[in-house]
Amino acid sequence: MTTLPGQLNPTPRLLLGPGPSDAHPRVLSVMSTPLLGHLDPQFLEIMTETQTMLREVYQTKNQLTFPVSATGMAGMETCFVNLIEPGDPVVVCSIGYFGTRMIDVAGRTGAKLTVKEKPWGQVFDLNELRDILKETRPKVLGLVHAETSTGALQDISQVGKLCHEFGTLLITDCVTTLGCTPVKLDEWEVDAAFSCSQKGLSCPPGMSPISFSPRAVDALKSRKTKVQSWYLDLTSIQSYWSGDRAYHHTAPITMVYALREGLRLVLEEGLEARYARHLRNHAALRAGLEALGLEYIAAESCRLPQVNAVKIPAGVDDVAGRKHLLNEFGIEIGGGLGDFKGKAWRIGIMGYNSRSICVLSVLAALEHVLRGAGVKVTPGSGVAAAELAYSA
Amino acid sequence: MTTLPGQLNPTPRLLLGPGPSDAHPRVLSVMSTPLLGHLDPQFLEIMTETQTMLREVYQTKNQLTFPVSATGMAGMETCFVNLIEPGDPVVVCSIGYFGTRMIDVAGRTGAKLTVKEKPWGQVFDLNELRDILKETRPKVLGLVHAETSTGALQDISQVGKLCHEFGTLLITDCVTTLGCTPVKLDEWEVDAAFSCSQKGLSCPPGMSPISFSPRAVDALKSRKTKVQSWYLDLTSIQSYWSGDRAYHHTAPITMVYALREGLRLVLEEGLEARYARHLRNHAALRAGLEALGLEYIAAESCRLPQVNAVKIPAGVDDVAGRKHLLNEFGIEIGGGLGDFKGKAWRIGIMGYNSRSICVLSVLAALEHVLRGAGVKVTPGSGVAAAELAYSA
Repeated sequence: MTTLPGQLNPTPRLLLGPGPSDAHPRVLSVMSTPLLGHLDPQFLEIMTETQTMLREVYQTKNQLTFPVSATGMAGMETCFVNLIEPGDPVVVCSIGYFGTRMIDVAGRTGAKLTVKEKPWGQVFDLNELRDILKETRPKVLGLVHAETSTGALQDISQVGKLCHEFGTLLITDCVTTLGCTPVKLDEWEVDAAFSCSQKGLSCPPGMSPISFSPRAVDALKSRKTKVQSWYLDLTSIQSYWSGDRAYHHTAPITMVYALREGLRLVLEEGLEARYARHLRNHAALRAGLEALGLEYIAAESCRLPQVNAVKIPAGVDDVAGRKHLLNEFGIEIGGGLGDFKGKAWRIGIMGYNSRSICVLSVLAALEHVLRGAGVKVTPGSGVAAAELAYSA
Repeated sequence: MTTLPGQLNPTPRLLLGPGPSDAHPRVLSVMSTPLLGHLDPQFLEIMTETQTMLREVYQTKNQLTFPVSATGMAGMETCFVNLIEPGDPVVVCSIGYFGTRMIDVAGRTGAKLTVKEKPWGQVFDLNELRDILKETRPKVLGLVHAETSTGALQDISQVGKLCHEFGTLLITDCVTTLGCTPVKLDEWEVDAAFSCSQKGLSCPPGMSPISFSPRAVDALKSRKTKVQSWYLDLTSIQSYWSGDRAYHHTAPITMVYALREGLRLVLEEGLEARYARHLRNHAALRAGLEALGLEYIAAESCRLPQVNAVKIPAGVDDVAGRKHLLNEFGIEIGGGLGDFKGKAWRIGIMGYNSRSICVLSVLAALEHVLRGAGVKVTPGSGVAAAELAYSA
């Protein structure tokens, strides 16, 4: 190697895409804390504290609740590989890109997989789900709570109960909801949930908090085959996180520090206050985006507050627009995935970044970008509409 | 929740077990850097820099070289699940606890698995390996380079060539060697290697640097079945790390920052200087440990410099001794695993912690602990022997 790369010194960004969102400064700060060993009594205590807070945020008493040592997608895989054995009937009801991922993940477990899909931007209603369960009688139903590719929120509040009428376990993707909008695992009778660290919890990406209900744990215990993944095998990891603290793999100490701080921030604020904050900032952002002439993809009845997916106006180039935002204003928003590639922008105001200054900044910058691309926009209209919404 | 846990404020430790070792202060410092998006051009550049440095440290030109977004054990699983399809003949030659893990991981891939084992503390010689390959003609041979459970270094410098005589791919566990002792993937013709971030690279745990040779990439490309793990599927991850930077999963940004800084530190020092430093500190530690009457498990011919596994003297309680070290001196060392549970102590001087002050501290503290447990030790003898070794 001729010359080494220089000191890390990135130009600061404001991360308003579908994730990662900016980590809270207090989270960044704890990440410089020197390491502890993964079996140090002090670290075991930190693990317990983290789990206790995580249960609170997931609104569950589930004993088997802890962060998987990898990013959100590993959490998805953890849920499927632990609950499914080859030949098990599984249904994935997909409403977008991350539903498609569930199909791919579930398909690798040897499951007898049935796929049900809705046009992107829509969600399933309870009657449709009932019919699907009746028809397929699956061991597991997989459903994405917040489909960040479309900005749609799938109501899952009644789905767990429904599943249990059919002896089905419900796996839900809470990657984009946890810490932003209500996730009530016990009340909703969700059997296995996974999330991430870099959205509603305001940490860097790198951990996937999961939670398994007693029903799911029973299914895990009655497996006849080994879990196909060693790294994600809850039958052994749980003895590190839930049992006798026996060594499984070396936990990512610093990421656990971060998650602990992120969870402290959530609970200091309080769940209800946090949800209300996300709704308030969403209302302002939405007013501003609509004033700029941007149209939402998901219907109002199932719209996510934390990820705002809008159609890119005719004549505006996706990549050029986002580059403009990034290079001139340091603001990152997301492009479209899959069917929506080149057609959608996704604006995330999650966790720490669900703040009025983020809303106003992105509206002001977007207005500039749209005008630059030849769209007619009344100067200041986005910000003005947001201001009005805030004062309403 | 009645009261929230307080601010993170752990009592400092000196981590001299088999890992994690202390992260370098410069690594801890970069971890407070605000996030970038995982597709930000700045982050893509950071990824490229990290990969370039990683190739240098692995001494390889392998294109497919990058850190898996999880801890070292996920790297092991990545190597096996990507190279093995159901029915493939695989041999694991085990010399200790992590060999046993390879057996478990390989066994979950549907491989036709043959296990060869040596008594813990010993290693395989080339003739033995040749006989095994002749007998079994496997697609893959799995071998641990440094068996941290016994402190034994398995010479792998000629094993790749040997494997290739039989059309076999060599997977090696370099978790404890990378950044401490030579790892020369190209010269040694290793086909797939994995490591960790928390030992020789002086980062927190959370990433597993892997590297696949062109031969291994060919095997990957000619798979007939999907890789059983979605999260670890190199056929898709490589398009994020090696190809068109297409989104696979959200990279653990902060851990990549850390790894980049850890690799910069390795290359600033220089590989040869770094290996020499590890040998020098090992020689001193060894002189000290032997002066204290502690006996190594592994024969001198195959002894690891960075993890020193010694027998616990008769009459000394494992757990009580380590507790004493931890609580009185803030020093963590490791206990024994598997066969050596309660019988061995493992002292790691790796990466940033391969320093004379660490060597002298642990010797002084161990002397105190041994004397406290009733072992007859001449006061100062461990430190004196180490000092003598340093001045030799």
